[in-house]
Amino acid sequence: MKVGIVGANGYSGVELIRLLQQHPYVTIEKIVSHSTHGKNILELYPHLYGVNEMILEKWNLDELSNLDFVFFATPSGVSKDIIPPLLDKGVTCIDLSGDFRLKNAGDYETWYKKTSAPAEYLQKATYGLSEVYRDKIKQAKLVANPGCFPTATLLGLLPALKKQIIHANTIHVDAKTGVSGAGRNANLTNLFTEINENIRAYKVGEHQHIPEIEQVISDISGEQVPITFITHLIPINRGILCTMYADLVEQVTTEEVHQIYKDMYKDEMFIRIRPIGEWPTTKEVMGSNFCDIGVMVNRRTNKLIIISVIDNLVKGAAGQAMQNMNIINGWEEHIGLNNSPLYP
Amino acid sequence: MKVGIVGANGYSGVELIRLLQQHPYVTIEKIVSHSTHGKNILELYPHLYGVNEMILEKWNLDELSNLDFVFFATPSGVSKDIIPPLLDKGVTCIDLSGDFRLKNAGDYETWYKKTSAPAEYLQKATYGLSEVYRDKIKQAKLVANPGCFPTATLLGLLPALKKQIIHANTIHVDAKTGVSGAGRNANLTNLFTEINENIRAYKVGEHQHIPEIEQVISDISGEQVPITFITHLIPINRGILCTMYADLVEQVTTEEVHQIYKDMYKDEMFIRIRPIGEWPTTKEVMGSNFCDIGVMVNRRTNKLIIISVIDNLVKGAAGQAMQNMNIINGWEEHIGLNNSPLYP
Amino acid sequence: MKVGIVGANGYSGVELIRLLQQHPYVTIEKIVSHSTHGKNILELYPHLYGVNEMILEKWNLDELSNLDFVFFATPSGVSKDIIPPLLDKGVTCIDLSGDFRLKNAGDYETWYKKTSAPAEYLQKATYGLSEVYRDKIKQAKLVANPGCFPTATLLGLLPALKKQIIHANTIHVDAKTGVSGAGRNANLTNLFTEINENIRAYKVGEHQHIPEIEQVISDISGEQVPITFITHLIPINRGILCTMYADLVEQVTTEEVHQIYKDMYKDEMFIRIRPIGEWPTTKEVMGSNFCDIGVMVNRRTNKLIIISVIDNLVKGAAGQAMQNMNIINGWEEHIGLNNSPLYP
Amino acid sequence: MKVGIVGANGYSGVELIRLLQQHPYVTIEKIVSHSTHGKNILELYPHLYGVNEMILEKWNLDELSNLDFVFFATPSGVSKDIIPPLLDKGVTCIDLSGDFRLKNAGDYETWYKKTSAPAEYLQKATYGLSEVYRDKIKQAKLVANPGCFPTATLLGLLPALKKQIIHANTIHVDAKTGVSGAGRNANLTNLFTEINENIRAYKVGEHQHIPEIEQVISDISGEQVPITFITHLIPINRGILCTMYADLVEQVTTEEVHQIYKDMYKDEMFIRIRPIGEWPTTKEVMGSNFCDIGVMVNRRTNKLIIISVIDNLVKGAAGQAMQNMNIINGWEEHIGLNNSPLYP
Repeated sequence: MKVGIVGANGYSGVELIRLLQQHPYVTIEKIVSHSTHGKNILELYPHLYGVNEMILEKWNLDELSNLDFVFFATPSGVSKDIIPPLLDKGVTCIDLSGDFRLKNAGDYETWYKKTSAPAEYLQKATYGLSEVYRDKIKQAKLVANPGCFPTATLLGLLPALKKQIIHANTIHVDAKTGVSGAGRNANLTNLFTEINENIRAYKVGEHQHIPEIEQVISDISGEQVPITFITHLIPINRGILCTMYADLVEQVTTEEVHQIYKDMYKDEMFIRIRPIGEWPTTKEVMGSNFCDIGVMVNRRTNKLIIISVIDNLVKGAAGQAMQNMNIINGWEEHIGLNNSPLYP
Repeated sequence: MKVGIVGANGYSGVELIRLLQQHPYVTIEKIVSHSTHGKNILELYPHLYGVNEMILEKWNLDELSNLDFVFFATPSGVSKDIIPPLLDKGVTCIDLSGDFRLKNAGDYETWYKKTSAPAEYLQKATYGLSEVYRDKIKQAKLVANPGCFPTATLLGLLPALKKQIIHANTIHVDAKTGVSGAGRNANLTNLFTEINENIRAYKVGEHQHIPEIEQVISDISGEQVPITFITHLIPINRGILCTMYADLVEQVTTEEVHQIYKDMYKDEMFIRIRPIGEWPTTKEVMGSNFCDIGVMVNRRTNKLIIISVIDNLVKGAAGQAMQNMNIINGWEEHIGLNNSPLYP
Repeated sequence: MKVGIVGANGYSGVELIRLLQQHPYVTIEKIVSHSTHGKNILELYPHLYGVNEMILEKWNLDELSNLDFVFFATPSGVSKDIIPPLLDKGVTCIDLSGDFRLKNAGDYETWYKKTSAPAEYLQKATYGLSEVYRDKIKQAKLVANPGCFPTATLLGLLPALKKQIIHANTIHVDAKTGVSGAGRNANLTNLFTEINENIRAYKVGEHQHIPEIEQVISDISGEQVPITFITHLIPINRGILCTMYADLVEQVTTEEVHQIYKDMYKDEMFIRIRPIGEWPTTKEVMGSNFCDIGVMVNRRTNKLIIISVIDNLVKGAAGQAMQNMNIINGWEEHIGLNNSPLYP
Repeated sequence: MKVGIVGANGYSGVELIRLLQQHPYVTIEKIVSHSTHGKNILELYPHLYGVNEMILEKWNLDELSNLDFVFFATPSGVSKDIIPPLLDKGVTCIDLSGDFRLKNAGDYETWYKKTSAPAEYLQKATYGLSEVYRDKIKQAKLVANPGCFPTATLLGLLPALKKQIIHANTIHVDAKTGVSGAGRNANLTNLFTEINENIRAYKVGEHQHIPEIEQVISDISGEQVPITFITHLIPINRGILCTMYADLVEQVTTEEVHQIYKDMYKDEMFIRIRPIGEWPTTKEVMGSNFCDIGVMVNRRTNKLIIISVIDNLVKGAAGQAMQNMNIINGWEEHIGLNNSPLYP
């Protein structure tokens, strides 16, 4: 199958290259970049010598139309304009940016501070949280691949929400992310000297992933509630850890909740519910498509505590995108994705 | 003034050496270590060449009795036995361990899983959160120096609690700490390879600083409430960042809360309330005795968000201990402590 | 094919698990550990959930004899005793420790300060530097897999030595390594707090990889020369970078040397000679079996400068071991090893 | 005494602020920045709240002329134009850039690829390696403060060169530096994601500190020799470690060399010759003005091995500059500089 990657010069783009290269049924035919077209990808990423040595090209609708699948790893505000014509030509599109995730155009404009994609295309998009919306994804022509934080957060919350053991309006999410999520952009804030031996909160109360998480919580629980969600930047390259707190609806034990989680995800190979008393760490999923989850009922405070971890570039971006490609094609979901985490 | 340091071989111990060396009124007369006595401190810490080249000695009650002030940077369960006789001989003691912080012996035994200090000595101890209990500290002969997490947490919460703008029973504290807080102990968990490029939650629901925080909240607010408090280990050496969330009692603006914080701490040179819209990071206080605090009212969720940072070895340990020594002696509080943070 | 891993609880051991799991022709039948037998590998390495959940067993000669291939990722001084009887039973052994690398038993005893393996077995061992000794490895029943530093150093030096463009007796190797090379052992020196934001030289003049490098230089160049070789520990987990300097025999240009390197390795898929003016970095090979090399002639000093990088756990240990297994079995060398580096 | 800092917005600039603030005889009167004038320094460096809250100003010759001392922490190519008129007005200048270090204008133009300062001003400049050129510095009106690498390299080499125990033409310097040396400039290469878990060589054979080192070696040894000098960037913020190798002129023991070093520096409080068998690490000098040195004679190779470490922003920049100011003013050299390293 012939695929293309638009925005191949960013970190999610090269992660797509890494994963697609190890997929047995796929050939990367085109890699596209707005800012660096004309260069060999090696000039930007010499780790790809002997792996992928393609030339980055300009966006060209006609040429891209000959492909079967195109992945968009573009900054927000780009794919909303270029996906619609490509979709109209029959190419299946997976968008890793936020442009097609929010169903309500006004929400996009409020949180992203940009013009939204046309409303009709927002409706055509399927939200690509693989384990939750698998049946819809099977039919999708346009997948809005989830954000990194929403992936970790929602996979951690959904069993409790579906089984109604927590009050949705009491959810707190304290998220910590590695720096690769910020992309490969030159700015003072993300210099090594500024990030190393440091931790900072950012976009407090303003993170564009908030409405995305709330939209899915509302879809699952039926409740339209604002959640508390704060993101922190920590000195690691890859990894997200979300610590989540919510009030319990009624008394329940850690063992009961743990069983609910085990049951809910029992057929999911990428979700690993960790034993009681064990908490996942980001390194334990690094480089893999796993989402690991730990749960505990805190008797003293009557709260459920959930911790989930992912590699933001894999399950939080390129890996889940490829998983969605597998779903759409009816292939086994783990194809190209069954490598072990890299430890240590 | 003659001072001694018991447990001088740990990270808090050498931080006391660093700070006391730059204090003009003080001479370090004795450094004591249980596990490494007989060695020159240089064998353990060669950075001290030319700074301090003393021999670590055995604990000896009579010899220590000749000092004016003794700092205890010992693991929990040690000072509870050796402070009482020294105190009885008239030496002022500042304990950096948790042995004298909890007023209720049963709480100590529940959370620390060790026998408590004698109840009468618990009563003699003054909790050394300098900015809050300054008047009591002035008279103290035994100071229970606060834990690192309680220092960052309580300095961040207290203005809101005192002014009753938050519901104490809705407090969530999501804490992140550097690894020096774990001390200099050989264990697999804290190897570079395991911590680097990783983040982990630990002691979830069981951290011994929980009752310490709740004790002060109860003292200030009059409410005995369980708080949600979770700690995470991040790959930095020094620094604690606490992200705190609480429900607002009634509508209030960020500007109003910010003013309350500015007013409450207006005479405190070590507490820096950051401008609205600016959030403190740990590196901005590294090596200094500052506690920086940012606040925001989140309209959507009707919550107060507070972020506080300290250097866990300075304001969270040795620095605050020396600040307390200054208070007791009637010296200016900043003596020996007015160095700038080390940045970057 | 049935394989076993002895010393599976160390970092090289779990790296073997990672790589062997993705090899299509191999099944891991036994994992053995002296210190942690009886435990599930998950208790030590939870990243392996769903990947490998085997029980670590005691060393048992008879049980191991049923396997086709056994890898030894044991500390030095272990395999010298347990490999001979297993080899005698016809099992092919690949030893990742240093026990069978030095042909001269006295050298082993001088540098390792331990009793050597029996001399007859030293003679049976083939040094497993895949690209250099491929023909011998094909016939091997016992492979002494090269050390991490010798691999990076020798692959960088050999073209220049073979073509006699440098004086062997002027070789300086300044090596920098990540901390995983030190294994997973609890000690103060390798705590995060001690390694982070630090660099240290270690084993100056005493590193046991010195005689190993000199032995191969002697084999290739015919000259028995002492080399200058110093190792440094830097705050990364994976990666070795060797900076090498040597006097040129006669005037030669960077272009000429570069061509010699390109030619020498033109059929080697794991060796990437980087373009002139470009120097490899460790991250560019992380997680992969690549060895990247850059060369330059320094006109002012009349020296050849060579920089080589590897992932110490892959090309420097488990990856090269698996490459050797492929060679012995007549399989394509890249099988199970063709994943891209993980970047960033 | 009134001082000013030009280029106060860079890392060396803020380090000057940190150190000058703790100097009892000095007041910072002006801070100047070309690119960020008009801003409060707090907008760039919030760690300075309560420490220094000055406004960055434009360069203004007349205003600066009222000061006693001006420090230039500007990029290369700036101070060569603005120091001469200020010097002519009688203000003592300490230049932390490379503009006045090389006596030969042609060397500057070759290595810096910029127009040199006027030759007459090059002659007026005194090279500020405090321990070596103290007598000249006492009389200086213009100090060319040494580069970070030359400081660490030369302090390590000079005793051996002065005593003629090594051949100057065999010197190899393998240098490793933290990232703060690159300054606070937004570029992709120094992003956290690119530096973290990585090591790279840079400016191989082209580093502008090479002629500076050679100029001093020539001055001390009388020999004009090219040295081999290569720099590496490692993932730490502060610190330089130089590993140096040179052939011995005649047989000498480690003990003899060690004694030579001890003797040569016996009155130097900032130079610490470490005991035989002990090698200095960068963290052991972090935040301090120390230069630590270890030496060993390697019998096998007949070479002297020297390892020196400094904090590149202190002894390698702002600290040595302040030390030079103390020398010029006849003050004790350690004033404002006697803080302990920050460990860990």
